Amino acid sequence: MIVCKFGGTSVASAEQIQKVANIVKSNPARKIVAVSAPGKRSGDDIKVTDLLIHLAMAAVKNEDTEEKIQTVVNRFKAIADGLALDYAICDVIAEDLRERVQGDKSNEELFIDSIKAAGEDNNAKLIAAYFNSIGMPARYVSPKEGLVVNDLPERTFALPEAYINLAPLKNTKEIIVFPGFFGYTKAGVLRTFDRGGSDITGSILAAAVEAELYENFTDVDCVFSANPKVVNDPVEIKEITYREMRELSYAGFSVFHDEALMPVYKIGVPVNIKNTNNPSAPGTRIVPSRPATGRPVTGISADSGFSTLYVSKYLMNREVGFGRKLLQILEDENISYEHTPSGLDDISVIMRSNQLTPENEARILTRVKNELQADDVQMRHGFSMIVIVGEGMRNNTGLAARAATAISKTGANIEMINQGSSEVSLVFGVLQEFENKILQALYGEFFAHVQA
Amino acid sequence: MIVCKFGGTSVASAEQIQKVANIVKSNPARKIVAVSAPGKRSGDDIKVTDLLIHLAMAAVKNEDTEEKIQTVVNRFKAIADGLALDYAICDVIAEDLRERVQGDKSNEELFIDSIKAAGEDNNAKLIAAYFNSIGMPARYVSPKEGLVVNDLPERTFALPEAYINLAPLKNTKEIIVFPGFFGYTKAGVLRTFDRGGSDITGSILAAAVEAELYENFTDVDCVFSANPKVVNDPVEIKEITYREMRELSYAGFSVFHDEALMPVYKIGVPVNIKNTNNPSAPGTRIVPSRPATGRPVTGISADSGFSTLYVSKYLMNREVGFGRKLLQILEDENISYEHTPSGLDDISVIMRSNQLTPENEARILTRVKNELQADDVQMRHGFSMIVIVGEGMRNNTGLAARAATAISKTGANIEMINQGSSEVSLVFGVLQEFENKILQALYGEFFAHVQA
Repeated sequence: MIVCKFGGTSVASAEQIQKVANIVKSNPARKIVAVSAPGKRSGDDIKVTDLLIHLAMAAVKNEDTEEKIQTVVNRFKAIADGLALDYAICDVIAEDLRERVQGDKSNEELFIDSIKAAGEDNNAKLIAAYFNSIGMPARYVSPKEGLVVNDLPERTFALPEAYINLAPLKNTKEIIVFPGFFGYTKAGVLRTFDRGGSDITGSILAAAVEAELYENFTDVDCVFSANPKVVNDPVEIKEITYREMRELSYAGFSVFHDEALMPVYKIGVPVNIKNTNNPSAPGTRIVPSRPATGRPVTGISADSGFSTLYVSKYLMNREVGFGRKLLQILEDENISYEHTPSGLDDISVIMRSNQLTPENEARILTRVKNELQADDVQMRHGFSMIVIVGEGMRNNTGLAARAATAISKTGANIEMINQGSSEVSLVFGVLQEFENKILQALYGEFFAHVQA
Repeated sequence: MIVCKFGGTSVASAEQIQKVANIVKSNPARKIVAVSAPGKRSGDDIKVTDLLIHLAMAAVKNEDTEEKIQTVVNRFKAIADGLALDYAICDVIAEDLRERVQGDKSNEELFIDSIKAAGEDNNAKLIAAYFNSIGMPARYVSPKEGLVVNDLPERTFALPEAYINLAPLKNTKEIIVFPGFFGYTKAGVLRTFDRGGSDITGSILAAAVEAELYENFTDVDCVFSANPKVVNDPVEIKEITYREMRELSYAGFSVFHDEALMPVYKIGVPVNIKNTNNPSAPGTRIVPSRPATGRPVTGISADSGFSTLYVSKYLMNREVGFGRKLLQILEDENISYEHTPSGLDDISVIMRSNQLTPENEARILTRVKNELQADDVQMRHGFSMIVIVGEGMRNNTGLAARAATAISKTGANIEMINQGSSEVSLVFGVLQEFENKILQALYGEFFAHVQA
């Protein structure tokens, strides 16, 4: 059995949904289909999810919502038209939206969640209706039937029983059409996944039914070995391990969200990233392990927007507990960090700048200075991280030398090097302005002679 | 005013103490002299401190101590003989030892401390007597007169009031001879410094009197840029900053203990490492800052005996508090660590192996596995750290590339690279068996064309 997920652009219009039907029909193993809400049909289009957020905000402010409901319904009507479906389904959708708008507003976050989820939920109903209309026996299944998630205030994730509840879907005769992006708490409250929502739903379904494959249909042919916006015509990745994919999850590799890998990673279901608009392309397979390719590096990613908290104190490394207390101060501000390079008497904590505000930055500096009696404390901004990833990097003598040499030829200074925990990655910290130049130089070093 | 400290070999015999007198006499600014206990006179000699430890152990076991007291007294007698001092001073020493042996044994650690300190204490009395005998007005000053230290169970360090108490020594007319290695608690209990004992006393005195210079006399001409036991004829370091010296405090740079730098570092007194047996050699100066030398690297040190705790968990870097909890587990075992290189989903904690036992290792692995729900936890042993240090490394483009290239040419794999916090150091982790080969290769890379 194969679980397929179709992203927003794959289900944005009647034409796209016809492609989806053809893909599903072409392989009888494709029995479970997770779908997003209709995405953008062109560059300046508005996604249904964004229309729903406008609707939710109007409802929160007790403004008139009927016009905004109509806008959403009209998007679905256009799709139904193109698919030669009768408008009954649109009446169902309009009714559903009016009901949601009347819902419990006591918790604003949960109320907005319930409106946002209407995009996926109704699209799944529409697509199931369409499949049936063209002779593909299909059934809409609601996340209410088993996709149990945790309660606030934690970020949404599926509880272990969700996998048990959803396992019987493996016996389906019809094609299951399942809305992505949300689940229900034990008390029946709807909650959406933060990011990569429909990818996560597909992954949960694939894990629950122990699928042979999880196909993730999007609008690109594959994952590239480097960001194609920065590097010209980068090599396509045919096969990549979970670990490599995860280490590459910085920018340029946002095709498949890393949180969505978790459920399939745990039981070893391979993932295939494919293009709805070019389904014959083999795409990129994400697998537990793969044979050596003879190439040490699989991909290079880069991301900007990092800050560094630098702390120095004489004889710091004799002080048991110093690092722990420093991290505790960041934890108190609910800040997560990426790396902690250290000298004997100093340590730097590298974190994403978007977690910092002038207020928490000031609090952190004061606390580190006073509570840890540090000699020097500074927060620096404007760094990028460049990550070189490859299973072939294990025990590859000289790889760090090649990378550092390639970087030094750009004239950029290496602000940080982090190697030694993950055997499949090597991280360089550089000033943001050098990021693209360095990515190009490293790509040249490790991929120059590779056939695309 | 200059504070001088003379180490064990510098005061091991009458001949050596005559050299000390000549050195002190040759510069009237040398007004305060901190001394060690008599050290080894030759390779197979026994240090007075070791004789005293034997004495202390006998006393603890209530064995007869008179013979062991005589052995110690005879060492001092031989010195007194050679210095043409009468034996009155030796009677004083014998009496002092008998009194110490009768001391309070209720706390064994403190009892042994009080016996051990007799080496420095009596040597200071003897040297003061000798100075006076040759017409150099001198006065023995006991640490009781102001060198106040903290109480058990913390490691011994001087309390802030020690500096205030000892400051008036700056007005001395005579030469002060001060025993190194110990101080007294507020309650008058003797405690010794753990390591680098007399170096610490000299440093405290230099800071207390705000000396223009702290001269540390030992038995080598200087600090070398690399361990001369591994690298042939390494370059002598003429001037080094506190920071550089501190970052080099791994093996091969044990001439001056890093804890001893703290008091002078705080108020900026320069240190001069000199050779009692070759006092005209300029030695190595440790200074707050120094002019650029045009050479990026000042020294390279290496040390073996490191272990790595490797922990991996999917999506670890999203989990606020993960690193803090991991370090807390080590702190509960009272283990300090050196570095924490990290990937996205894994972190390694590098620590000195001598802190680990089969028992605490098993406890750590179990706790990390259970409490942090890690996917994989492993302890690995047998690593060396190689540290390249130099103030000239700030913003030195390409230095990491040169170092990594030199290492890769040895055929060794780089297990860890840590750069990015200290601007004056770059740390490589390698397997222990490659340590010497890599040290030689890095020395060749950065010092090959330097005139010794």
